Amino acid sequence: MNETTLFYLSDLFGVAVFAITGALMAGRKSMDIFGVLVVAFVTALGGGTLRDVILGRHPVSWIGDETYLTVVTLAALGTVLWVKMTRPIHELGLQVADAFGLAVFTVIGTQVALAHEVPTSAAVIFGVMTGVAGGVIRDMICNDIPLIFHKELYATPCILGSLTYIGLQPLALPSYIEVLGAMAVVLAVRLGAIFFHWQLPRFHLLDRDEQQDL
Amino acid sequence: MNETTLFYLSDLFGVAVFAITGALMAGRKSMDIFGVLVVAFVTALGGGTLRDVILGRHPVSWIGDETYLTVVTLAALGTVLWVKMTRPIHELGLQVADAFGLAVFTVIGTQVALAHEVPTSAAVIFGVMTGVAGGVIRDMICNDIPLIFHKELYATPCILGSLTYIGLQPLALPSYIEVLGAMAVVLAVRLGAIFFHWQLPRFHLLDRDEQQDL
Amino acid sequence: MNETTLFYLSDLFGVAVFAITGALMAGRKSMDIFGVLVVAFVTALGGGTLRDVILGRHPVSWIGDETYLTVVTLAALGTVLWVKMTRPIHELGLQVADAFGLAVFTVIGTQVALAHEVPTSAAVIFGVMTGVAGGVIRDMICNDIPLIFHKELYATPCILGSLTYIGLQPLALPSYIEVLGAMAVVLAVRLGAIFFHWQLPRFHLLDRDEQQDL
Repeated sequence: MNETTLFYLSDLFGVAVFAITGALMAGRKSMDIFGVLVVAFVTALGGGTLRDVILGRHPVSWIGDETYLTVVTLAALGTVLWVKMTRPIHELGLQVADAFGLAVFTVIGTQVALAHEVPTSAAVIFGVMTGVAGGVIRDMICNDIPLIFHKELYATPCILGSLTYIGLQPLALPSYIEVLGAMAVVLAVRLGAIFFHWQLPRFHLLDRDEQQDL
Repeated sequence: MNETTLFYLSDLFGVAVFAITGALMAGRKSMDIFGVLVVAFVTALGGGTLRDVILGRHPVSWIGDETYLTVVTLAALGTVLWVKMTRPIHELGLQVADAFGLAVFTVIGTQVALAHEVPTSAAVIFGVMTGVAGGVIRDMICNDIPLIFHKELYATPCILGSLTYIGLQPLALPSYIEVLGAMAVVLAVRLGAIFFHWQLPRFHLLDRDEQQDL
Repeated sequence: MNETTLFYLSDLFGVAVFAITGALMAGRKSMDIFGVLVVAFVTALGGGTLRDVILGRHPVSWIGDETYLTVVTLAALGTVLWVKMTRPIHELGLQVADAFGLAVFTVIGTQVALAHEVPTSAAVIFGVMTGVAGGVIRDMICNDIPLIFHKELYATPCILGSLTYIGLQPLALPSYIEVLGAMAVVLAVRLGAIFFHWQLPRFHLLDRDEQQDL
């Protein structure tokens, strides 16, 4: 399997995973089937679309290749059927699925930005953006506090994973090792956050006006 | 009237209608006149701008042609004057106006995407995006639950209207029949949703954690 | 100092100021250091990125020049350190800092749009967009009611400042006078709004359905 195929399949995997998290979130808001499709689409393809538009990279993935829309549709419909036929899904299931999507998209976003020859620091931004933007939009349109602003680490695993991918470049390792290594970093840190409530020290600012409010 | 003129005038009509819904929403949030203009602008031109940016279509409509900004300004000011001089507007009035804008923009978005030679499935996405994005942004910045996530059909009429427009293409009918036919589908389904509370079966997901919360 | 340098330094100043307001807002939401960086980045560079993407101006500022990301990072970290070492910051401090950023970005946005030869009316839109978009995104992701929709003038100073800048063009004054003059207008009106609660008459729409709700 060559590098292009590896990235393509990983991208489709990330799209499927995020489409599932979008469909589950839509289900928690009791949407109808077309609402489910809209949320699945935005969650799965929002981050990559934002990245491509800011990079000036046209056509955007899902316009040039119908496979993306097919994957979103099948993943969303499959989720609805699976939930209807079996038992409800835990909040935890949603968060673990989200962690996998985060890992894939962070690495892909970093790789796409590097291939566009942006500076290293900007490539990290694109990694984080591709990883988190779809989920942030999903949470905002569903009126939830975005996962990214929960107490646990969320942007942090993306930043570390993106830096790992960039740091591995000079070693000229096989692509799949770079990709899996960086994904493992994102996953490990994010799953640690979900299961062991890993946190960094927080910047807590309580201003005087706020104290009066309370 | 040739095809280009038909689409241009329909587009301006949709812009005027959505500018009115934006101005009304701003009035419900008691904004001042410049706030009203900002919300009217975002509602009327947000969907088309998003579509053009994702398609890589430059210059975006309202940059290349000042008529768009003139129409938004006149529609917003006209709404403020009309409301001040007559009686308040019902929630229902806002929803019906929104339905007309939805119909026009869905068809235009689909048409623009097809003219850009995107695949059929992507053209449906652009139809829905052009139709709903302005209203979603309007509702989000005004802190309302976006209409698209209310119980009634909202994305559904756009998808059906966009598919109708695409389905009519091979028949080589006059443009205005394709446009009016597809708009009629959007309007009929959306008005049915508003007045008769049409719904599709809903995907309702209540997970165990949520039950504990309640 | 030539015109290009003037705009570049002003832009970096605006980026630093908005990064600070983003970091402060993140602190009010008790985020960790990477969350602080994400909010600072989005606040400082969101408006300019939106402007460049809609104008089709690539590469976007912070992709072509790493100085922008350096400034955001230093400003955000500096804010955290400064707050930790000294006393809390008033809501008022956040609003005054925001006013300075607003002034700089409104003028820069107008100037960039004029340099792209967009019509005058569109240049005002880009001025307002560059000024307010970062702050609106900051407030939305932090789940606050965006400052732009508070009672006091917010879009208004941007519109007046942008018009001032445009109106000064034919006089062929030195750049720094045009820039400082237009910035002074934004600042004066916005600070008047903050300290003296300046308001325009408001468009208040209370529909019958809403009355029933109350």
